[in-house]
Amino acid sequence: MLRPIVMAAVAAAVLLVSPTSHAQFAKPEDAVKYRQSVFTVMGRSMGGLNAVVRGDRPYNAAEVQRNAEIIAMMAGLPWTAFGPGTESPKALPAIWKEGDKFKKAQDGLQDAAAKLVAASKTGKVEDLRGAFGNVGASCKACHDDFRGK
Amino acid sequence: MLRPIVMAAVAAAVLLVSPTSHAQFAKPEDAVKYRQSVFTVMGRSMGGLNAVVRGDRPYNAAEVQRNAEIIAMMAGLPWTAFGPGTESPKALPAIWKEGDKFKKAQDGLQDAAAKLVAASKTGKVEDLRGAFGNVGASCKACHDDFRGK
Repeated sequence: MLRPIVMAAVAAAVLLVSPTSHAQFAKPEDAVKYRQSVFTVMGRSMGGLNAVVRGDRPYNAAEVQRNAEIIAMMAGLPWTAFGPGTESPKALPAIWKEGDKFKKAQDGLQDAAAKLVAASKTGKVEDLRGAFGNVGASCKACHDDFRGK
Repeated sequence: MLRPIVMAAVAAAVLLVSPTSHAQFAKPEDAVKYRQSVFTVMGRSMGGLNAVVRGDRPYNAAEVQRNAEIIAMMAGLPWTAFGPGTESPKALPAIWKEGDKFKKAQDGLQDAAAKLVAASKTGKVEDLRGAFGNVGASCKACHDDFRGK
């Protein structure tokens, strides 16, 4: 009877550990560095699209689509890096105190970013402008509530 | 005659400026921060796949594929951030002195990363292992030649 019990215990341990180990970082600083890096990569592509939307850079379909795809991919990444014990000056306590609201903000960004990718494929700068504006509004709303100075 | 000349001059200016403005960063520090952020994001996904390949994390097809796609996307991004005047302690002078070799290293990574994405879709850990090893070898070769301590 021992062996099945041990195996069951191992299986249970794996089940318990797996989702956490996916999210876990070796040190809190690693989590902070990771999420900040994600936002840096996203910010560069936002800047690129902003220049197109403002007319400061010519509309290049491939570049526009690539930037939209980078933004959409980045929009899914930073959230697991806001684990307990990863407070930083730019991450306000509201992130941990108002988890539901923070989650809603994440979902809002991911939704807006998915629509940005769709808009980037029409080849029309007007479509890009609207979708880009919504992503920007999503960024700003979350920054207002959850980002320190 | 003036108008066509002016228009031609504008067109020439746009042609001259566009590719550069795509690559340009406002400050050299911005370029350094951007490329380091890209490598941080890539490194996290490499770590995730490494754990799977070593058997330290269960094979989760969706997670494996997502990490491969993150790596492939990141593999295309940092290179324009190695412009003139963006030297940093971790970026060896060879980057600027041996441009062709550096370009070949970039292409090697991008090729290996594309194959990693393909391998991530077969659902077989052996396929992942081989393709992941090639990406890792690509990273290492480039670090050996171009990355400072």
